[in-house]
Amino acid sequence: MGQLGRERLVIIGGDATGMSAASQARRLKGPDELEIVAFERGHFTSYSACGIPYWVGGDVDGPDQLIARTPEEHRERGIDLRLRTEVTELDVDGGRVRVRDLESGAESWTGYDKLVIATGARPVRPPLPGIDAVGVHGVQTLDDGQALLSTLTALNGTPGRRAVVVGAGYIGVEMAEALLNRGYEVTVLNRGEQPMSTLDPDMGRLVHEAMDGLGITTVGGANVTTILTGDGGRVRAVATEDAEYPADVVVLGMGVEPETSLARAAGLPLGEYGGLLTDLSMRVRGRENIWAGGDCVEVLDLVSGRERHIPLGTHANKHGQVIGSNVGGGYGTFPGAVGTAVSKVCSLEIARTGLRERDALAVGLRFVAVTIESTSRAGYYPGAAPMTVKMLAELRTGRLLGAQIVGREGAAKRVDIAAVALTAGMTVEQITALDLGYAPPFSPVWDPVQVAARKAVAAVRSAG
Amino acid sequence: MGQLGRERLVIIGGDATGMSAASQARRLKGPDELEIVAFERGHFTSYSACGIPYWVGGDVDGPDQLIARTPEEHRERGIDLRLRTEVTELDVDGGRVRVRDLESGAESWTGYDKLVIATGARPVRPPLPGIDAVGVHGVQTLDDGQALLSTLTALNGTPGRRAVVVGAGYIGVEMAEALLNRGYEVTVLNRGEQPMSTLDPDMGRLVHEAMDGLGITTVGGANVTTILTGDGGRVRAVATEDAEYPADVVVLGMGVEPETSLARAAGLPLGEYGGLLTDLSMRVRGRENIWAGGDCVEVLDLVSGRERHIPLGTHANKHGQVIGSNVGGGYGTFPGAVGTAVSKVCSLEIARTGLRERDALAVGLRFVAVTIESTSRAGYYPGAAPMTVKMLAELRTGRLLGAQIVGREGAAKRVDIAAVALTAGMTVEQITALDLGYAPPFSPVWDPVQVAARKAVAAVRSAG
Repeated sequence: MGQLGRERLVIIGGDATGMSAASQARRLKGPDELEIVAFERGHFTSYSACGIPYWVGGDVDGPDQLIARTPEEHRERGIDLRLRTEVTELDVDGGRVRVRDLESGAESWTGYDKLVIATGARPVRPPLPGIDAVGVHGVQTLDDGQALLSTLTALNGTPGRRAVVVGAGYIGVEMAEALLNRGYEVTVLNRGEQPMSTLDPDMGRLVHEAMDGLGITTVGGANVTTILTGDGGRVRAVATEDAEYPADVVVLGMGVEPETSLARAAGLPLGEYGGLLTDLSMRVRGRENIWAGGDCVEVLDLVSGRERHIPLGTHANKHGQVIGSNVGGGYGTFPGAVGTAVSKVCSLEIARTGLRERDALAVGLRFVAVTIESTSRAGYYPGAAPMTVKMLAELRTGRLLGAQIVGREGAAKRVDIAAVALTAGMTVEQITALDLGYAPPFSPVWDPVQVAARKAVAAVRSAG
Repeated sequence: MGQLGRERLVIIGGDATGMSAASQARRLKGPDELEIVAFERGHFTSYSACGIPYWVGGDVDGPDQLIARTPEEHRERGIDLRLRTEVTELDVDGGRVRVRDLESGAESWTGYDKLVIATGARPVRPPLPGIDAVGVHGVQTLDDGQALLSTLTALNGTPGRRAVVVGAGYIGVEMAEALLNRGYEVTVLNRGEQPMSTLDPDMGRLVHEAMDGLGITTVGGANVTTILTGDGGRVRAVATEDAEYPADVVVLGMGVEPETSLARAAGLPLGEYGGLLTDLSMRVRGRENIWAGGDCVEVLDLVSGRERHIPLGTHANKHGQVIGSNVGGGYGTFPGAVGTAVSKVCSLEIARTGLRERDALAVGLRFVAVTIESTSRAGYYPGAAPMTVKMLAELRTGRLLGAQIVGREGAAKRVDIAAVALTAGMTVEQITALDLGYAPPFSPVWDPVQVAARKAVAAVRSAG
């Protein structure tokens, strides 16, 4: 418990959610009212994990540039931040956590009045033979990034260096670009037929073609079975059911899962994807004094009405802000998400929001799907680049269900139009009437999103 | 009247609205059912007037590239298009228009069953001494663009060529860029203190500073009194109340007014700005068989609830689509606009949507205004450029009233987020929760629009 009249807030996890919550709570309540203790098992706090591929690729210096706020800055603001300190047990009935100092190994209990669980996610790492070989790297943390860069540095000068990336989601395609930039011959092994399973396969195929064009080999339907090692336990190849792919370095980009082992052991409510379940104020369901946010929770999908696991820095920051406000005596809510995500492979921009065809089918929606080709600028304006927009609309109501965009400059952030429209529950007909910015250097007179909406309107009407 | 059993649609004006309406009506009704006659007094149809500055500046070849569809293409689709033919009188009781062939001078009456008025806008051209001098140009039509280019070609090789642009709205700043690209020393004379009066003056000042940085001289508070001529009636300078500005060429960019002289003479309803008044289906109020759209109408401002004149190609195209659907036996509506506009001066992007401070005051709204600085990409990502966002929110309700953005790449189209949110009637708090696209190459983790919204939320709360 805290000192006389002073509450103690304990935060588990010192990244985006945890430290945003700490900062916002401190803004609202001074050290006399609220003691804030944050435990982080790593060496860093408040960093942009999303920036790691660009650091590895050499676009960004790191790791300092990726750190939004250092431990010292947090401490100067009256936050008792303990690095290299892991919480090993959560006693919710006793209102305390057991912590271990990872340097000394010492363990002790710390009580809390209010608790924030911001334990993040852990990378999926199947127990394949050889997965712990030298030269096999995840890219989840700054420590991971540093380790991968050390491997790449050691390989400098090796002729014909080859990299295999396992997984073709956001991290996979971004790491493929990074390794291409570092001069590697890059092969991406993907379980699905097309990269970017967050898109429908017809849109994923466009990404596949663009990656081919960049000289990245993408193998679909590839089930990795073994990581083969050579001298000194170093990786030498990745084997699938069908083939062997020589590799000097292997990057794992197979997605992440909520890190909720503490919460599970403590009996806190978890959802279908293993993430903590919260209410709109990010309070853990049924628990008065425990909040959770970031990659360890599930969020409400505003389009399907179902809970999903969407590990993204943008949500983690919002959650932290909301939790900090509520813990600090103000108020805030996180109403949910529509599933917006953007990425790029070299100059190819990739964006999605809302439901894919399979998502809409899974929740029993009846819909039309249309795809159009347009351009980023007026067709006659220099630099106008092709853009493909796919749009899903509900039958009869015409309600927008989702949009996917693949193109060059200006493709990614155009998805925000659809993201806001989804949040507002707009129909595709309402989208055709939107007053969007138009000038020849920025858009055709009908924005590509509206061209798609017009086709969707016609499809909804003709489907009756 | 049309032939037995066949209706005749007459369209006055062959640009975006008129020809979009013709095309859409033809899609819905074949020539056996609907005769379509379109009168256009100029030489061209369906062209992008918004592209003229880029043609003049040399970024775009013209004029063919600016023409979306040629007269021949329209005629092949069964549209009886008469170029160089001016409608001189409108007899709504008799259901007929008097037309003059501008080549032969012959006049005749043509009857209609349905009429579309798409007469566009005319540039403001005050009766200043010297305004018709050689070398003084408007930039409203392709003919204007061609004439200006002839003047510029004739001046090629003249050392120290000087251009004066009168007016610092969209056309003014875009023409300043075009003339700078052509090697002119450019001076912009502006009646207001800051350029871009569609922005609040504090945001206009940022445009002013950027233009200074580009070597464009912008003079605020400049009332042009006379255009001074020299040899052969050629322009030699522009005089204001305070000074004289030498000029080899003068471009007028003083805005436009609805071209509604025919409609006015025919007793059709006009609004405060001289534009035709219509209902949501773009039917002229109180007239069963007359539609109007484009730069000659006023549109409903969805934020203020007032009619405004917003001459923009994007609305003109939407109006044409809606009119063509309704005339052709389908249905469509244009619900109104929120006043979105984007532009650029070299690499500076300028965007606005919704109400400025003066607009909000004019309709009696009480509001807070906040301004923030952010960046186009994650701060650490190469190419991250500064971006300034101003946001207005209503007191107590927190409803978004308007947004203005000035910055580099990615600034202009970001205004679409605010445009969709305005249309949906969102509060600034709802904007902070939007699920917008985030990845380091495309945005900071909090999009600049959301950074502004967060500040607006705080301002609304503290104002009580």
